[in-house]
Amino acid sequence: MNVLVLGAGQLARMMSLAGTPLNLVTLAYDVGSDSIIDPVSFAKSEMGLKQAIAWADSITAEFEHIPHNVLEVCEQSKKFYPGSRAIQVGGDRAKEKALLDNAEVKSAPYAIVTEKQHFLDALASFGRPMVVKTCQAGYDGKGQWRVKEGDDIEKIWSEMAEFLARGTDTKPHAILAEKMIRFDREVSIIGVRSKSGEVSIYPLTENQHTNGVLTLSIAGKEKATIQTQAENAFTKIANALDYVGVLAVEFFDVQGELLVNEIAPRVHNSGHWTQQGCHVSQFENHMRAIAGLPLGSTKLLRKTAMINVLGEAAIPVEVLTVSDVTSHWYGKAAKPGRKMGHINVSADTLHELGEKLALLAEVLPEEIYPGVLSTAKSLILN
Amino acid sequence: MNVLVLGAGQLARMMSLAGTPLNLVTLAYDVGSDSIIDPVSFAKSEMGLKQAIAWADSITAEFEHIPHNVLEVCEQSKKFYPGSRAIQVGGDRAKEKALLDNAEVKSAPYAIVTEKQHFLDALASFGRPMVVKTCQAGYDGKGQWRVKEGDDIEKIWSEMAEFLARGTDTKPHAILAEKMIRFDREVSIIGVRSKSGEVSIYPLTENQHTNGVLTLSIAGKEKATIQTQAENAFTKIANALDYVGVLAVEFFDVQGELLVNEIAPRVHNSGHWTQQGCHVSQFENHMRAIAGLPLGSTKLLRKTAMINVLGEAAIPVEVLTVSDVTSHWYGKAAKPGRKMGHINVSADTLHELGEKLALLAEVLPEEIYPGVLSTAKSLILN
Repeated sequence: MNVLVLGAGQLARMMSLAGTPLNLVTLAYDVGSDSIIDPVSFAKSEMGLKQAIAWADSITAEFEHIPHNVLEVCEQSKKFYPGSRAIQVGGDRAKEKALLDNAEVKSAPYAIVTEKQHFLDALASFGRPMVVKTCQAGYDGKGQWRVKEGDDIEKIWSEMAEFLARGTDTKPHAILAEKMIRFDREVSIIGVRSKSGEVSIYPLTENQHTNGVLTLSIAGKEKATIQTQAENAFTKIANALDYVGVLAVEFFDVQGELLVNEIAPRVHNSGHWTQQGCHVSQFENHMRAIAGLPLGSTKLLRKTAMINVLGEAAIPVEVLTVSDVTSHWYGKAAKPGRKMGHINVSADTLHELGEKLALLAEVLPEEIYPGVLSTAKSLILN
Repeated sequence: MNVLVLGAGQLARMMSLAGTPLNLVTLAYDVGSDSIIDPVSFAKSEMGLKQAIAWADSITAEFEHIPHNVLEVCEQSKKFYPGSRAIQVGGDRAKEKALLDNAEVKSAPYAIVTEKQHFLDALASFGRPMVVKTCQAGYDGKGQWRVKEGDDIEKIWSEMAEFLARGTDTKPHAILAEKMIRFDREVSIIGVRSKSGEVSIYPLTENQHTNGVLTLSIAGKEKATIQTQAENAFTKIANALDYVGVLAVEFFDVQGELLVNEIAPRVHNSGHWTQQGCHVSQFENHMRAIAGLPLGSTKLLRKTAMINVLGEAAIPVEVLTVSDVTSHWYGKAAKPGRKMGHINVSADTLHELGEKLALLAEVLPEEIYPGVLSTAKSLILN
């Protein structure tokens, strides 16, 4: 069975690696070069996009910001999962908010801004600091601003107005103003839904971001009540989208109440720990779902932490001397801030996980791998 | 870092899949077509063998029966692990026996047969049935015969004499006569040795063969005493060969005493369960060893059974509905008896493993997947 992934980055690569043992052959569409490649070896295929769509039995995507014409032709093939609606909702904050409202899933209060009065009304209603986000494009902290006390409203509005006037290739940009949520922490839930509507959900993950980019995740420390809350939200969203494949939902945890921050219609960085923490990873489950195969177990096998490798061409070799540590490299050339790979570490208890993270902190500098030592300490104390 | 594997079958494929997350790029030398290929996508490289040897940082092998001239040029590169001596010992039963004798590791009594009197002496000494094996070539039950009561000795000798006269490309064949061991079962140990001589060993595996081909393995049911016996034998052999990489040693279990049946200087079918049963599989540990990376954990995480898929192009889809079951396909065209893939199933207890195997037995016909039901029953009763 053949799978085409829209997007040819690390997510397509890890889907391919997970699909190979299932007898799935994966190629990826690299949007930038408009070419079809093997996402593991990067070998260029002789096929063009149209041929690859015909070649594929299933089509999926590794990111939301896919050109509209590509989405359309994939949708027409009737082989595209999770489908263009889910991709568009994931790539447009206004659509995402409307979906959450309809599915009755809580998120931060918001307003859609297309003219100055909307902006002023939002400021009056939400107070400062207020979060302003572009509806389309922007992730990992890009395309987001905060309006703080003392900021020049006229100056910010003129920037926003210019942005709104610019538009995208097919439609005008919109901006979303959101009440700033004072959250205790960020968590996410990763789950999978099959073609027949079966849902299976991984344990909640706690995520640490640095400069808007995920740096560390931990799975296996959550209470049942918060897991249930997250699963309910996940199921409502997945069902509302008639979703097929892996879906990620990010939340703010506000004193035990979860508010959706954003949804990602794909395998997700905060689910990379499932490669070692579960019998069946998010990548394998996504491939199983879109290939129409039975879903695999999402049960936690071992407490697992994931550390992102950002901008580094190598990790200290001592990392692999720590027991139950696995590296995952994406085969990319190093660039500052680029997601180059990740490190998974597993343990039978949170205390043991803390001890292993403490060993890793000895060889992973805090400025490159923030939060490893503090997480280790908090797990050891607990 | 680049790795070249001699041999381009499923073992090279699974080495490549395990090496990719470690940032290792793997190509394979297909001996039959004398070409360099990607062992996962099967895409042909433009490189020839000589170029690929220059390209590689490390060279390894997935089988023992490599042409002598290829072994020689790889050895000269000083990048070849476990090295030509280990490969030759693994591919020649006479050399293997000599190694075991020197390392003081027990195996069945034997005699090297190059003329008729040796054969008659062996028969007189070992009695019937007696096992006769070619020293070179032959595995998975090929190149082995038994001399039974009532067999025509003259006729068998004339076949053997013809075989001895034929020889191989570089040297005459020899034949090994071996006392027939009445064993209770077959077990194997898989372990890994690093460039610095560090050894790490997986739990003993119990193996079931059908018509000389492995059909089912189980890991996680052995007592410490027999594990220690196997580890001692493994360590002596690995050290005697100054071995680097994964090595497999197969034993006959004779009332708790282990006699070596044969050694395989490579990752091994009876270690495929490590893909799900351990944090670091035999494939990843082999790649870590030959790349000079620290070895990974060989500890059992969960009781795991492996079922070989022989000659079948597909498995019943219901197999994947059983919890904690993973399929591993090799991407080959189906041929009767061909190793097409394998199925791993894991559980927290032997009883639970038995229950899962019983579910699998409902959809896997006994004539194609022998031993699944009987193994399930014996695990459930224990």
